[in-house]
Amino acid sequence: MKRYRSMIGLRPNKIEEYKRLHAAVWPEILSNIKECHMSSYSIFLHQLPEGNHYLFSYLEYTGVDIKADSARMAANPKVQDWWALCKPCQEPLSNRAEGDWWSNLEEVFHAN
Amino acid sequence: MKRYRSMIGLRPNKIEEYKRLHAAVWPEILSNIKECHMSSYSIFLHQLPEGNHYLFSYLEYTGVDIKADSARMAANPKVQDWWALCKPCQEPLSNRAEGDWWSNLEEVFHAN
Repeated sequence: MKRYRSMIGLRPNKIEEYKRLHAAVWPEILSNIKECHMSSYSIFLHQLPEGNHYLFSYLEYTGVDIKADSARMAANPKVQDWWALCKPCQEPLSNRAEGDWWSNLEEVFHAN
Repeated sequence: MKRYRSMIGLRPNKIEEYKRLHAAVWPEILSNIKECHMSSYSIFLHQLPEGNHYLFSYLEYTGVDIKADSARMAANPKVQDWWALCKPCQEPLSNRAEGDWWSNLEEVFHAN
């Protein structure tokens, strides 16, 4: 199992919409997460002192090829519909890696 | 089980020291984490586009009173020695809640 954590900006005028969407995630999205070998998926929110809001995701991946599973997730039409609602709420970090939407964080410690 | 996530700043001149410390956490600290009913404890690091570095912690709490367990952790002399090394590396967020060192994040989504 491998842990992935990432972050992204959340537009200030979209905070309530994003929270509302995630209080009732579609069943197809939840089952797709499992099918793509991801679990313990959580998203947290925080406002930094300078005023910007950020989202922080955490997930545990139990498959063998996260690139293939991520591509399978991205190809799912229902996921595409879901992302069409979520992405306008988000503001990717300008220093993210090429091709990324969320920015991956570096793990410096883990204890089971 | 309840999930806790928090964040704090990391001083730019202390990044390597913090990573070095956390690449070899003392056994007494690891066993104390378990004794205080905390597991899946991880810390991630990321630099925001404006240049500041931040640490993000994630843990799962399986006890019944996290305030009591946190107080027990803080009273452990070995933990106090460990924190005396870690705290000078960290820079708490100015908008943290009173009495906090790390800032707690708000959970907006979770799927098992």
